[in-house]
Formats: sequence, C-alpha cells, structure tokens
Amino acid sequence: MRLATCNYRCTGCDAINSLYPATKALDKRLGTDYHERFLKLLKEIQKNDYACTAALTDVKGDRSKRPKDERDMFIHVVEKRDDGIVVRGAKIHQSGAFAADVNFVLPTQTFREGEEEFALAFAVMPSDKGVKYILQNTGYQAKFREGGDFETGNPRYGDRITCTIIFDDVFIPWERVFIYEDLKATRDVLTYFANSHRCVGAACKAGFIDSMIGAASLMLKANGLEKIPTLRQKIGEMVGISEAAYGIAVGAATKGYEAGGSWQPNQLLANAGKIVGVDGFNRVIMNLTEIAGGIPVTAPSEFDLKNSEIGELVKKYLKGSESFTSEQRLKIIKFVEFWVTSSHLIGAVHGGGSPAAAVIFLQYLTNLKEKEEAVKENINL
Amino acid sequence: MRLATCNYRCTGCDAINSLYPATKALDKRLGTDYHERFLKLLKEIQKNDYACTAALTDVKGDRSKRPKDERDMFIHVVEKRDDGIVVRGAKIHQSGAFAADVNFVLPTQTFREGEEEFALAFAVMPSDKGVKYILQNTGYQAKFREGGDFETGNPRYGDRITCTIIFDDVFIPWERVFIYEDLKATRDVLTYFANSHRCVGAACKAGFIDSMIGAASLMLKANGLEKIPTLRQKIGEMVGISEAAYGIAVGAATKGYEAGGSWQPNQLLANAGKIVGVDGFNRVIMNLTEIAGGIPVTAPSEFDLKNSEIGELVKKYLKGSESFTSEQRLKIIKFVEFWVTSSHLIGAVHGGGSPAAAVIFLQYLTNLKEKEEAVKENINL
Amino acid sequence: MRLATCNYRCTGCDAINSLYPATKALDKRLGTDYHERFLKLLKEIQKNDYACTAALTDVKGDRSKRPKDERDMFIHVVEKRDDGIVVRGAKIHQSGAFAADVNFVLPTQTFREGEEEFALAFAVMPSDKGVKYILQNTGYQAKFREGGDFETGNPRYGDRITCTIIFDDVFIPWERVFIYEDLKATRDVLTYFANSHRCVGAACKAGFIDSMIGAASLMLKANGLEKIPTLRQKIGEMVGISEAAYGIAVGAATKGYEAGGSWQPNQLLANAGKIVGVDGFNRVIMNLTEIAGGIPVTAPSEFDLKNSEIGELVKKYLKGSESFTSEQRLKIIKFVEFWVTSSHLIGAVHGGGSPAAAVIFLQYLTNLKEKEEAVKENINL
Amino acid sequence: MRLATCNYRCTGCDAINSLYPATKALDKRLGTDYHERFLKLLKEIQKNDYACTAALTDVKGDRSKRPKDERDMFIHVVEKRDDGIVVRGAKIHQSGAFAADVNFVLPTQTFREGEEEFALAFAVMPSDKGVKYILQNTGYQAKFREGGDFETGNPRYGDRITCTIIFDDVFIPWERVFIYEDLKATRDVLTYFANSHRCVGAACKAGFIDSMIGAASLMLKANGLEKIPTLRQKIGEMVGISEAAYGIAVGAATKGYEAGGSWQPNQLLANAGKIVGVDGFNRVIMNLTEIAGGIPVTAPSEFDLKNSEIGELVKKYLKGSESFTSEQRLKIIKFVEFWVTSSHLIGAVHGGGSPAAAVIFLQYLTNLKEKEEAVKENINL
Repeated sequence: MRLATCNYRCTGCDAINSLYPATKALDKRLGTDYHERFLKLLKEIQKNDYACTAALTDVKGDRSKRPKDERDMFIHVVEKRDDGIVVRGAKIHQSGAFAADVNFVLPTQTFREGEEEFALAFAVMPSDKGVKYILQNTGYQAKFREGGDFETGNPRYGDRITCTIIFDDVFIPWERVFIYEDLKATRDVLTYFANSHRCVGAACKAGFIDSMIGAASLMLKANGLEKIPTLRQKIGEMVGISEAAYGIAVGAATKGYEAGGSWQPNQLLANAGKIVGVDGFNRVIMNLTEIAGGIPVTAPSEFDLKNSEIGELVKKYLKGSESFTSEQRLKIIKFVEFWVTSSHLIGAVHGGGSPAAAVIFLQYLTNLKEKEEAVKENINL
Repeated sequence: MRLATCNYRCTGCDAINSLYPATKALDKRLGTDYHERFLKLLKEIQKNDYACTAALTDVKGDRSKRPKDERDMFIHVVEKRDDGIVVRGAKIHQSGAFAADVNFVLPTQTFREGEEEFALAFAVMPSDKGVKYILQNTGYQAKFREGGDFETGNPRYGDRITCTIIFDDVFIPWERVFIYEDLKATRDVLTYFANSHRCVGAACKAGFIDSMIGAASLMLKANGLEKIPTLRQKIGEMVGISEAAYGIAVGAATKGYEAGGSWQPNQLLANAGKIVGVDGFNRVIMNLTEIAGGIPVTAPSEFDLKNSEIGELVKKYLKGSESFTSEQRLKIIKFVEFWVTSSHLIGAVHGGGSPAAAVIFLQYLTNLKEKEEAVKENINL
Repeated sequence: MRLATCNYRCTGCDAINSLYPATKALDKRLGTDYHERFLKLLKEIQKNDYACTAALTDVKGDRSKRPKDERDMFIHVVEKRDDGIVVRGAKIHQSGAFAADVNFVLPTQTFREGEEEFALAFAVMPSDKGVKYILQNTGYQAKFREGGDFETGNPRYGDRITCTIIFDDVFIPWERVFIYEDLKATRDVLTYFANSHRCVGAACKAGFIDSMIGAASLMLKANGLEKIPTLRQKIGEMVGISEAAYGIAVGAATKGYEAGGSWQPNQLLANAGKIVGVDGFNRVIMNLTEIAGGIPVTAPSEFDLKNSEIGELVKKYLKGSESFTSEQRLKIIKFVEFWVTSSHLIGAVHGGGSPAAAVIFLQYLTNLKEKEEAVKENINL
Repeated sequence: MRLATCNYRCTGCDAINSLYPATKALDKRLGTDYHERFLKLLKEIQKNDYACTAALTDVKGDRSKRPKDERDMFIHVVEKRDDGIVVRGAKIHQSGAFAADVNFVLPTQTFREGEEEFALAFAVMPSDKGVKYILQNTGYQAKFREGGDFETGNPRYGDRITCTIIFDDVFIPWERVFIYEDLKATRDVLTYFANSHRCVGAACKAGFIDSMIGAASLMLKANGLEKIPTLRQKIGEMVGISEAAYGIAVGAATKGYEAGGSWQPNQLLANAGKIVGVDGFNRVIMNLTEIAGGIPVTAPSEFDLKNSEIGELVKKYLKGSESFTSEQRLKIIKFVEFWVTSSHLIGAVHGGGSPAAAVIFLQYLTNLKEKEEAVKENINL
C-alpha cells in the first residue's frame, strides 16, 4: 500500500515509545504500577493491531496566561474517583484521532510546581462517553465533499482529516491512566515523544517528497519537458532533500540509546532532522511549483472535462505529450495541486512542534562546554 | 477599497502600456495604422473605465514541439476576411478575464520565421461569439460554493477566479487587431509587457504581504503572544520583504525610459523585482505559518461554531485572548488559512512568467562587457 | 575611477546628512548654535573637497554592563573647558578613518537619562593631539605587505584599511562639537545616520556585486566555460541581486522625506535594502565561488609564476582558454580570491549595523495598526 | 588531538576504499593482477601508518576542449617501459599532498573511447623524481609567514596547505600502477571515490562546525552576550546543521553496501550529505559572523597588543567580559577570523566536487521510475 500522504499511526507509535520508559522510571521512583497498566494495554493493541494516535496540543487559550488562570484550556482532572478520573479540556491538531482505536492523551508541555493537575497521560477509546471530534475544514474537505473521480487530486488516500477532540467531562478508568499529576514523568514523556516524533517526522518527509518527485517527473513527461536540464536539475535537488531527511532519521536511529528497555533515537540528530525536514519541504514545494507551472491551480475541473457541452474542447486544449491522454495529464495536474495547496506544508512546519522549538532543544542538548574546550586547546586559552 | 487580493486589472494596464509603443513602432516600420486603432479602443476604455485584462499563455500542448506541429495549441488565424480575422486556440491562467470588459490577447512567446500565423495581438469582448471561459477549480472554489459568512477566509474579495479562455473560431474585426503576423512587433510587445508586469508584480506583492503582516499581527494578539520577541522579529522580516518589493518597483519606475511616447520601467530592475518578490513571498508564507501555528488548517469550521449542538463547546475552546471573541479569532484564523493554502504562492511564482525566465532576461539585459572592462582596468588586464 | 571596493567616504556623507537636520532641531529646541558651527565646517569641507568618515562604534567592553559601569569603553568627556572639551574612549571598525581629512565622531547608541556624558557628536582632525589609529590585520594586510604586482588580487585599490581610533584624552574645540550631552539629539542623529547609511549601503553592494559579476564572466571565459547554461544562470542571478540592491536604494531615495532642509531616505525602504543587501551579498559570494571553482584559494602565487626555476611549468599548467595568457588568468583568479576570502562579506553583514538591528527598526517603523485595520475591514472584524 | 581543521588523510582513505573494489573488478574482467599490487602497497601503508592523500583534479586548461586537444592538461603516459610508465601532467587542489607519504593519483573524470591514455591510477612517492609541489598562497599563508603566537588564529593546526603537483615526466614502476588505460575501471574508481568522499565530507563538516560553535560560544561569553536569546538561537541553528551533516553521514554508512569485499556508503545519501553540508556550512559562516560582529576582521593585531608604545591602550580597549583577559579575547577573535576569511568556505563548496555535480549524481542515481509508479497507483493512471 502506498498512501502518498500520512497514515496517522506515527504519533501512536511515538506515544508507545515514550510511555514505555517514562512509566517504568515513574514506577521505580514512586513504587507505582503505571508501567504494568501500560503494558496490559500495549499487548491488547498489538494483539488486535489497533490503530493508535497521540493527542498532545491543548487549545491553550491566551498564551500569556498560566494554565491555572484558564484551567479548561488545559486538560485536567475535575473529579477523582476510586475507579478512575474525570477529565475536561480539548486537544487540537489531532490527525486521524477520530478514526483511531486508541488515542493516547499526553501533556502539551511541562508544568511547574502547583500545576500538577495538568500533568496527566492516559488513553481514551472511541466508546468513552463525552469525547467529541470536530473535524478540520480546509478547501480539500470541501473538494472531497463534492466528490469526483480524481478532482481531489489524491482520491484514494488524500482525505486526510485532522480534528479537535473535546473532553466534555470524560471518565477514564485507572487502568488507562499512565501519569497522574506528576511533573517529572510529564517532562520525561514529552522529551521521549518529541525526539521520537522528530526522528520519524524526518523520515516521513522523505516519503512525502518521493511522492512529489514522482509527480514532478510525470508532469515533465506529460508536458514534453523531460529533457530540459534546468528542470531535471530541480528534480535532482528534490532527491537530495528527500534522501537527506531519510538519512538523518537513519542516523538518529543508529546512534540512538537505550532507555528503560526501549530504544530511543539520538536526541540531537532527531531535532536536526526536524529542521532539515522543514527547510527542505518548503524548497521541494517551490521546486515542484516551478516544474509544474501555474496550471495546478488554474486548470479546469474534472467535471468540465466530462461535461457534455464543453468537454471535448477542454479535452482538446488540455492535451500535452502524446504519451498521455488529456485525462491522464489532468490527473497528474490535480495530484500536484493536492501537494502545493493542501495543508501539507503547514503540517510539515508544525507537526511534532515548530522548528523554533527544535532549535531551542538543540541549544540545550548540545555539549557546548566540550566544544569550547576543544577550541581553548587549539588556541592555548 | 482594500482587496487583500488581486484586482485583476494589472495585466490590462500592462497590455495597454506595451501595445502603445509596439504599435507605434510597427506603424513607423510598415506604414500601417495599428496605433490609431489601438488609440481608438483605448479612449473608449478610458471613457467607460472598462476593466481590462490580458491573455497571454497559450496552452502549448507538447512543449517539445514547435507551434506548426500542433497548430491549435497556439492561437492563430484560421480565416482572413475583409472585415477581420477568425482565430482559434486557447489561453490558460487568465485571471479575471471572464469578468472583464476587454481582454487583450497577446502572443505567448516570440516566434521564428515561418511561424508568422501565430504572431498576433488583438482585443476580444465578452459579446464575441465563440469565446468560452472555463474556470479554475481549487479547494477555494469549492469552499466558496459552500458559502458561509467567513469560512472562506476572505469573504468579500477572496473569490479570485482564474480561467482558461477558449477561442472556438472567434471573429475579430480589424479595428481590434493590433499585430497581424509580425514577428518584430510580437517581440516588442512581449518585452514591454514582461517588464511592465514584473515591475507591477513586485509592487503588488507588497500589497499582498502587507495583508499577511496585518493578519500575523492580529493572530499574535488573538493568541496573547504579541510580546514574544522572536515572533515579533518574524513580523519585522515580513515588513522588510514587503518594503523591498515595493522599493524595487519604485526604483524600476524611477529609472525607467521613454518608448514611443510611453514610460516604461527599467528592464533590469523590473526583472530583479520579480526574483526578490518570489523569494520573499515564499519566506513570508513561512513566517506567517510559523507565527500562526498549525490552527489555520486544523481549525473547526464556522458551521461548527454556529452549530446548535456543539457550537457552545467549540466557542469555548476556540477562545484566545480576552480582547477577541472566539468568532473574531476564528475569522483571523480562516483569513490566514486563505493565504497559506490558496493559490497565491503559486501565483506569485508564475505570475508574469517564471523566476527562471526573469533570470534569463537578466543575463541578456545586463551589460556584461562593461562590468568585465571595469575589472580589467582594476587588475591591469 | 573604478575602485572595485569601498571608497570610504560614504560614512562621512551620512554623518553630514544626519548632523544637518539633527543640529538644526537641537538649536530650535534649546536655542543653541550647533547648526551654525556645523555649517561652517561643512563649507570648509566642500571648499577643500575633504575626505570625511564617521566613527560610530564604541568598543563597548562587556555588553552586559551599562556605560556608567565601564566609562572608558564609551567616548565621554573627561574635562570641560571654556574653549572645548577633552574626550576619552575608542571607536572600532572605522574604515578609512586614518586617511581622512575629517572624522565625524557620532554616538554608538542611544543613551538613557543619567548617561548624558556619552551623548556627544564632534569632529576630529588628524592633527588633534592624542588621536591614535590602530589598523586591522587580516590576511590581506599581510599579503599587501609582501607586495607583488597582482598577488593581492586588487592591487590598485584593494588595500582597504579599517582601524580602531583611540582618543587618548583629545581636546576638541567647541566649534567642532555638534552635540553636547543631549539624549534627544543623539537619538536623532543616530536614526538619520542609520537610514542614510543603509540606503547608501544597499546601493554600494550593487557596485561590489557588479565587480564580482565582471570577475565571474572573465573567469568563465578564461576557463572556456562561458557557454554553459547553468553557469550563465548563476551570473543572471548575480545580476538580479545587484539590480535589486540598487533598485531599493533608488526607491528609498525617491520616496524619501524632507527633514529640516535636508532630504532623507525613506526609513522603511532603507532598512529593507540593508536586509536584501546582506542576503544577496552572501548568495553572490556563493555563486562566484561555484563559478570560479576551488582555484581562487589553491592557485600558485604570482611569485611562483615568475620564478626562474619553476615558472615555466607553472605558466604551462595555469593556461586556460587561448584568449588569455596564464598571467592574465592568474590575475583574474587572484581578483576572485580577493572577493571570496577578504573581509567584504563580514563588512557587508555588519557595515551600517547588523541585519538584526535593521529587522528591529522595521518592526518599529512600520504602521502595523494600519495593516491590521485593512485586514479587519476585509473580514468584518 | 583536535585539529579544528582538515587532517588531510580523508582523500587517501577514500582512494584506498575505491581502489580496493575497482582493481578487484578490473582483474576479474581482464585477468590482471592490479588488486594484488594494490594490496601489497596497502599493507605497507598500514604497517607504517603512512599518511596518504589522493590527487584527482587535473588542471584541465580550456574546458571547452577534449583532453586529446590539450594532452598535457591531463595526466597521461608519455612512455611505456618494461618496468613501469612515465607520466606527465599536473593536479591542482591537492590538500596535504606535499607532506604525505603516499599520494594516490586518480583520474579526474571519466573518458570516452579513444581517450584511454588518460585512464590511469597509480601511487606516487615523495622520492619519485620529477614530482614538484607548488603551494597555494592565500592571505593565511602570508600571515603564517609573519608568525606570531596567535595572530594566525589557529596557530597549531591552521597552516593548512593545499598545492598543485606537477608531474614533470615521472617514472612510476608497475607495482604502483593500479589502472592502466582502462575506461571502465576509471569509471568505477571515480564513482566509489566520489561517494566515499562525499560521505566523509558531510561528517567532516560537522567537525568544522563544532569548532565554530565552540568559538561562537566563547565569543558571546567574552562579549558578555551569552544570555541574549536571539544570539543563542543562532548557536542552536549551528548545532542543528552540524548534527544534520553528521547524521546523514551515519545514515549513508549504515545504509551502505558491499562491493568486492569492501563496504561502500549509500550513494544517494552520500550525495545528499554533500548538498546539506555546503548549504549548512554557508549558513554557519553567516551565523558565526552575526554572532561575532565585525571585529574578527577589524581587530588590531597581536603585535599591536604587545607593542611597547601602544600595547597598554590596545589591551585596555580590547577588554570585554571580566572572565577573559584582553589577550584571551583577541585569541578568540582571531580564531573566528580564521574561519570566516580563510579558504574553508570555498573548500566546503568544492571539496569532493561541486554541489552541481552532486545534484547530477542524484538525478541519475535515484529510481525515478519507482517513484512515478507509486504516483500512478495513487491516481489510477
């Protein structure tokens, strides 16, 4: 199966990869049994091949305030019972959550002392009462509602839906609670998650970009331009970006480290991959745009092509190279449109946290002292 | 009036600005009366304040072939009559043409000897028989079809429509023919048009970017982030890009030259403006994306906000700063979505020709010899 | 005369252009006669065609401290006399100052209340006692000390010297003091200077880049590569950057404003020019490097070429195209080396203040409110 | 040992890594014994820990001509004897060659049929008669000739010397000839070498950049600026670039392949690393420049600091933070100067071939068909 877009399961895997060592360390510190609870769910997930996602980003409200001052803007406990907890709040940007079997709910950020009520991790099921999904609504959702065989560009897999999840006082049984009001475990799970997702996110950019490279190559052929050196050069640049993103992810995995029985990607390399991925994705969009020309956004629709009155003329004037029918050429055009005007660029920038967040991580993760010492030795300082 | 998008009239003005000197030179060379014909129409346009556009880009078909080998892919004369000509072909990427009073039809490229039949310029009116407009169909057209008060982001002016114009054997009377099978005049009008449009296009980017700067500033305020230095810095960068694009356009106009009684922008500066405009526009989109976060593409819709069942919860969780209602914040979010996912970036890249075309112009326009001589003098060569 | 480097006089002109309106406003506010003093000197300068520079950047010491805490790191008055003042401190980065007839000494930054002692502007002459110039010492100074006909790359004009000026208790008569302990006038003169210099600095980048374009073109010819499209494209890009920098400067001058009888460049455009200039200069260096190959830094020296033992072999193997002798080719190579390894890139980044400073100016100068209002009107906010 | 510059041995290792499989395949094809000859030398190298380099780039003369038309511009055989061959020609850009124990001489490019005389690989020893080294001569060589304790910036290791090697009819015994007039083996060794060197070159950029990060961090501290967020952010960006270059190299090595008993890096990833490395190196130089300010190129010299007459004043005004003496601060400044004005940027661009060459490799290496097929499946083409 080849999606040419997101399969949504990455965040679920990242959540599993981060809750595993974080709950283990938490239990070791506090003598609790969170890890066992987590393992029980994990086994069920593996047995049933459940699709999992992770929900992280709280809606946050006014960012100049602390969570205490706008409590509902951050998921928190409104009632503690013997058999579980009742949570309230909302998560935004949750790709695929509405269609997943299990959604891991992780904290959106680290918290300070006194903010323990927000330091939570748990799993929510579609059957839990009070969970509400509100879907995104970009132009592509509107296009998909109108249908057509290929007008949406990526008809099989392109109806990528992200959503907001509202927790309208949802009861979560203790066996699905993995962090309960603990600041240290929150910090742990966030760090593991961020690094895991940035490593994965670099590799997935390679997949997206490969799809755009294929589209660019077909576009050139459909236009009879496949031999123009300066356009081929742009494809070569796209290949370089795709491979770079993939290569850093491989490097991050290879130079990873063991944490509580799990393998975690190298933190510096994972964050570096995020930055290369964003810069590269943007250049790829620009190269694809230069290769394809303006037609991906100005082309007639599939419906015009099939129109009984005007269709023949549209077909005539959409013809490019003889190796492609007009319909085939329009399919390629609409596929390119999908890449250059959908939410993918924005997703690449903000998925797994903003590039600015990755730069801050890099500042803190790197061993500056070691680098200073090497220089001092060089210059006899 | 403030559009926050294209007003469509620029190409019409550029056509006027280029046909004026080109027809004058043509008449001088051949003793014809094209310039007079043109002036007659121009006066009518000015008297009635007609909205004019220009149609340039032929559909071209297989780019590896010459026009002769796929005649209908380039507009050409199929019949020459005493009272006018009958033309066939199609133009793509014609912003606003379907709504204009007058469309100037200009050649898409220069032609070689033997290709005179394609070397044409004329004006077409909406009432001419056989003219057919096929509209573009991006996600935004689908969104606009669904309506709403502000779900489209730019409800007043955002329904920017570009189209393909098919000339299904259209009769054009001689008084609206301005170039008839003349290679030299074709070259002239194209050069004037390209420079005029690139000059104007640099300035118009400033207008687009100013709209994005306003949106970015409102977005920061609606999120309570307006005091964060690194985000304000991104606004400063956007301002720099807007002003740069505007400044080059002013420079190009100031250092322009007189051609046959018209004022033409400086060719080098106009083309430089194109390149700065494209690079800058891309960076502006990236800055706006970083400032706004992921929400412009993941937000619920206006319809969810107004939904009787779920609306109150959506309202609650979309709230940001107290200075804005949830609806106001969502309006800003949707306006940002309009900029970052609509066809504007692609339009910026290809409008007025690709950046690659501008780079080629710059190679030929610059006085390399003079620069070499200056170096030779420096190094005693 | 064509320098292919800095003529040093720009800062002097900027100082004149900023002291003129600043002293006028100062006198109007305080009833003083600074403007008259300034005019007297200006007339003398004009009569004698004196070369003038401006000295701005104090050495500053520990940047985390205020001037009061390290007084000598900022020029200040150590004695006030009836006939003048005695000043102490040092200015760094003063291009050409050691060779100028008049150096205008301007404040390095704005100051707060209580820091009036640093709020000074005056003119210093080479004959003033206690002024000491300490020259920069990069690899190029070492090369120039070793001499040769063209080994330095830019033998006629390339010995561009920047220096530190130490004011070892220098007496300045009142007639050459133009701001004396005044915070407002300091702010004025700095703003005028920064804008004037950034406008000028954008234009001067065009001159530098034109020199590099000429060198790139000669280099291609000397290597027999002048017909390779991808290399010619790089020259086209360089032309675009040069023209853009020039165009913004023209735009800034054209859209300038009158201030106390002087014409000042548009502030937004001047700062935009700074940023475009720096980004562009860097790209130009990269393009020139790609065009020239590695030889500008690996080539044998002029002395090897002329060496009696090895010279003939060096000559043989340095030969490129037949249109150039080996010596001519080496002259071009050394001229390229001059551009890509000398201090010019660093000078482009920091001359007239850092790009970061320009971005901050742009944030404050732009009318954000107006841009927000335009958006609000668009989206009915 | 920490060099903070090149150790010169990388090309020697790359030559070994490429001659190993290339000679093996050559022998298999032709039944020759080149591989055995090579292994004999390799064992000697390993036993003695010989420093090896590789010499590739022929001087090439007029690039518009073929080698046949300017035979001496490409190394070729002028005499074939029973005991060996006599070669003539010259190689440029050979870092460290003059100081190496063994220089592998590899072909500069692939050759066509009829050009077999240039298809050679062999090893040359310092003792071979007729080998002449002509050193590069940049400003840094001039600085090193003048001496000083730290004026050169990188006094221990910075005297990085690249040279031209002239083969003035040099006799090479058969046991050191590894490819003799064979087009296929030439192609093999070049491909192996290019990929090996680009993989290594990505990793070595990380080392260079780490040295610049250390310098940037010390510079901030010496100026009292280490707490400014926007400057720290620039260090974070530098870290991301360093780690990205390193990560891709690790990825390339991990995803490598076996060739004739040797392990070769993944070709796509190695070439991607080249491009990321060049772009990144340039940004690092710019960040370091922005962090350090203008002083690395305008500072007084070490000799001024130690001057009996002016030294005390220089010391006074060069003082920054109290944690550093003026001399310590000047050492850091000079070390930064070494990075931003020496030949390192040009070396990063062209070492291991130009970025343009890597882009062309990427076009040919990638499986475009596979990417097209994936798209076709997606859009039912």
